[in-house]
Amino acid sequence: MRYEDWVREELKGLSKSLGFQYTPREELEDRLTRLRKGMEKEGMEAFLVIQKMDCYYLSGTTQDGLLFVPLEGKPLLMVRREVERARVESPLEEVVGFKSVRELPSLIRDHWGRSSEPQTLGLELDVLPVRDYFRYQDLFPGARLMDASPIIRDIRKIKSPFEIELMRVAGNIGRKVYQEAREILREGMTEIEFGGLLEAAAKRYGHEGLLRVRSLNYEAYTWHVLSGPSGGIVSQSDSPMGGLGLSPAFPVGASLRIMRAHEPILVDFGTCYHGYQADETRMFSIGEMGEKFVDAYKACREIHDAVLEETRPGADCEAIFQKTLRLAEQLGYSPSTALRPFDFAQGRPCSGHGGSYLGPPGLQTRFIAHGIGLELNEFPFLAQGQSYPLEEGMTFAVEPKIVFPGEGSVGLENTVVVTQDGYEILTPLEQEIFQV
Amino acid sequence: MRYEDWVREELKGLSKSLGFQYTPREELEDRLTRLRKGMEKEGMEAFLVIQKMDCYYLSGTTQDGLLFVPLEGKPLLMVRREVERARVESPLEEVVGFKSVRELPSLIRDHWGRSSEPQTLGLELDVLPVRDYFRYQDLFPGARLMDASPIIRDIRKIKSPFEIELMRVAGNIGRKVYQEAREILREGMTEIEFGGLLEAAAKRYGHEGLLRVRSLNYEAYTWHVLSGPSGGIVSQSDSPMGGLGLSPAFPVGASLRIMRAHEPILVDFGTCYHGYQADETRMFSIGEMGEKFVDAYKACREIHDAVLEETRPGADCEAIFQKTLRLAEQLGYSPSTALRPFDFAQGRPCSGHGGSYLGPPGLQTRFIAHGIGLELNEFPFLAQGQSYPLEEGMTFAVEPKIVFPGEGSVGLENTVVVTQDGYEILTPLEQEIFQV
Repeated sequence: MRYEDWVREELKGLSKSLGFQYTPREELEDRLTRLRKGMEKEGMEAFLVIQKMDCYYLSGTTQDGLLFVPLEGKPLLMVRREVERARVESPLEEVVGFKSVRELPSLIRDHWGRSSEPQTLGLELDVLPVRDYFRYQDLFPGARLMDASPIIRDIRKIKSPFEIELMRVAGNIGRKVYQEAREILREGMTEIEFGGLLEAAAKRYGHEGLLRVRSLNYEAYTWHVLSGPSGGIVSQSDSPMGGLGLSPAFPVGASLRIMRAHEPILVDFGTCYHGYQADETRMFSIGEMGEKFVDAYKACREIHDAVLEETRPGADCEAIFQKTLRLAEQLGYSPSTALRPFDFAQGRPCSGHGGSYLGPPGLQTRFIAHGIGLELNEFPFLAQGQSYPLEEGMTFAVEPKIVFPGEGSVGLENTVVVTQDGYEILTPLEQEIFQV
Repeated sequence: MRYEDWVREELKGLSKSLGFQYTPREELEDRLTRLRKGMEKEGMEAFLVIQKMDCYYLSGTTQDGLLFVPLEGKPLLMVRREVERARVESPLEEVVGFKSVRELPSLIRDHWGRSSEPQTLGLELDVLPVRDYFRYQDLFPGARLMDASPIIRDIRKIKSPFEIELMRVAGNIGRKVYQEAREILREGMTEIEFGGLLEAAAKRYGHEGLLRVRSLNYEAYTWHVLSGPSGGIVSQSDSPMGGLGLSPAFPVGASLRIMRAHEPILVDFGTCYHGYQADETRMFSIGEMGEKFVDAYKACREIHDAVLEETRPGADCEAIFQKTLRLAEQLGYSPSTALRPFDFAQGRPCSGHGGSYLGPPGLQTRFIAHGIGLELNEFPFLAQGQSYPLEEGMTFAVEPKIVFPGEGSVGLENTVVVTQDGYEILTPLEQEIFQV
C-alpha cells in the first residue's frame, strides 16, 4: 500500500466517524452549470477561483489551492496543501498537486488540451490582492483578466436544499446554545465571559468557531454581547450598535464590563456548520429589564413580523426596508423622537428620551436584513438602494434593533429562507425575553 | 453640550474603566519617523494606509477608515465609522469623518495644502483587493501607485518596549489558561470542547478571541487541539500538523474526536491583548502518554533550547533553521527514519516506526519559527531561504514539532523577543507535560 492510499483511507475513516458531510457531485454539477451560464453571458472563457469560500462552493474542499473552471470541459482543482485530503473531500475528478504558482499555466494547458491559454480569464477582483493580480498577469500574458466576483456572488445567493439543510443544522446549534444560555448567565459576570461560554457551548455542539465576511478589514465574531450602556455605543462595523469590545484593536462586541440586574443584555450570536451560518439575536436580562426596553423589544418583534409578512418571491428588497422605517416611526422610534428629549446640558441623555431605530441618531445603518450563507454579507440586502426582487432559495438574517444612547439597546434577529410562497425560519427559538 | 462631546466623554469613561490602553503619541511619532525613512528611500511621496492592522499600528485606532501619511507634514486620519470613537482612540491631531471614498481626494488636498495630488502614492498591494486598486487609480489619476507593504512590514518587525509589554500581557493570559487547563481536561471530552473551554477561559482574562494573519485565505484560530491520530493529519495550513477540524469547510484544528487516556494531546494556543499576540504549545495527556511520545517531546525541548541558544542580534535566521534539521536528524527524527519502518502492507504504519520532524514524510514545513506581533506571519521567519540577521526587538514563536503518522504528534512552542544580548521568553510557563 502506498502512503497516499493509506492517508486517504485514514482520513476517510476518521472524518466519517466524526460526521463530515461532503458536497455531493450532483450539487457541484448544478452549481457549475449555473456558473457557466453567467460566464457565457459575460464572455468569460475560464474562471480561476482563488477565494477559499468560492473554492469550497465549487469544489467541496477548502484545502489550499485554486480551481480552474473552463466554460467547456471539466474543472481542474490544483492543490498546494494537502492534495490527498482534497481528493477525499472533493467529488471532482481532476485533482492535481502543485508547489509553485509558476506551474499553473502548464497544468492548465495540459488539462485543457488546447495550445493557447484562455483569451478571457475571470478572477475574484473584489477580494484578490493586487500583487497576486500582477502575478497572474505575468503567468497568463495572453488573457484579458476579468472580474468574476459578480457572477459567483450572484449564483451563491440562491441556496439549494442541501445548503438550506446545513443552515438548519447551524440554526439548531444556535437554538441549543440560547436555551443553555439561561443556565450560564449570572449577575457579576462580564460580557466577554458570558460570550466566551456561549461560544464554548456552541463548539461542543459542532459550531466551527469562525464566522466569515467577504471583506479585507471587516472581521466577524460571535461574542456580540452588549449590556446596558455598551449597547448604545457604535464602532467600526456597519451595525446599529458596536459595543465596547476589549481594546482599541478589537473595539467591538463583548467587553470586560460587568453585567448588572435589570439592564437589557443583547446577544447577537452566529453559528457555523460545514461553513454555513445562521445568525440570531435575543434579549436577556437578570431580573426584569426596564419597561421602555421591553416596549422597544415588542416594537422590534412587530417590525420583524412585518418583514416576514412581506417575504415571498417577487417582493422588492428596498421596499421592505422602507416599510420598516415607516413602521418604526409609527411605533415611536424615529431618530428625531430620540433626539428631542436628549438633554445634553446634564452631560448625559435624560432618562425620558426615546429609542432610535437602527442606531443612535445620525449613525443609523441603512439595512434591515443581510443575506447569509457561507459569508455574512451575501445577497440579498434588504436595504436602501437595493431594489431587486426576493427569489426562492434566498436566505437572509432580519434584525430590527433599537438604541437608547447611554442606556442600552434591544433587538431581535432570525435567519430565514424564502420559500415558494413565503418563508421558513431557520433559527427556530422562542422570541420571549430570556430572563434569569 | 453637543452630542459629539457627550459621546466622547462617555467613551473615555467606559473604556478607561475597562483598562483600554491607547497608543501614546510619542510611540506613533517614532513609528511614523521610521516609516518615512523607508518611504523616502523608495521615493514615495505619500502612503495611503488601508489595512486594519497597519492603520492601528500607525494611528492607534481600528475604526473603519484610512490613514494618509505624507512624507512631510502631519498624517490625516479619515474615518468612515465611527469618527468620534477614532478621536478618543487615536492621539493623531487630524481626524476627519467621511461617507464616500469619492471625498478622499479633496480631503487629502485640503489637508496637504498643495494644489496637486501626490506623484507617487503607496498602497498595501499585498492585501489590497484589485477592485479597490482600480478605484484609487481613478481617484488619484496623477499618482503612480506603488507597493508600500514591504516598508510597513519592515518597520513592524522591530517591536518597541510598549509593544513588547502588550505581548507580555498576552503571554500571561496564555500562562493562566494553560494552568487552568489541567482542571478542565478530562477523559471523554472532545477536542473541540476542550479547545472551546480554553478559549472561554482566555476571554475571561481579556484575550480578544481573534488571531490575525496577513493573508486572503489563511484563517487563524486558537482551538488547535490535536489528540492521538488527529495530530498526524496535515491540512490546508502551512503547519507540521493540521488536525481534522470540524468539516471540509473548516478542516483544521480541534475536531469532535473524543480524547482518550495515554494519547499525546497537543495544544497550540494563541492569545491576543490589544492586538498583540503570543503563541505557545504544550503537551497534555490523560494518564501517561507512550514512551516514544515522551522521548520525542524531550527532543522538541532540546531543539527549542538550541534555537534560543543561538538567539541574539546578528544570528542568521536560515542558519538557525538549518541547525535544527541537523539536530533533529542526530536525535533520530529524520523523515527517512520515519519512513523506513513504515509498513504499509498492513494498511497502517506499524507501531515501531519513528517520528518525523516538522511534519509527515514529504509534507514537512520549512520553518522552525515565525515572527509574531499584530499578525502571525510577520518577519522574521527562521526558515529555509530566509537568510538575514536577527535584530534586537524582533519577536518570534519557535515551535519544534514531531509527527508520528497515524498515531499522534508532539511539540513545544514559546514566543520570544530578541534582546541586546540574547532573548526573553514572553510566554513564561513550565515546559513539562501537563498530565492529568
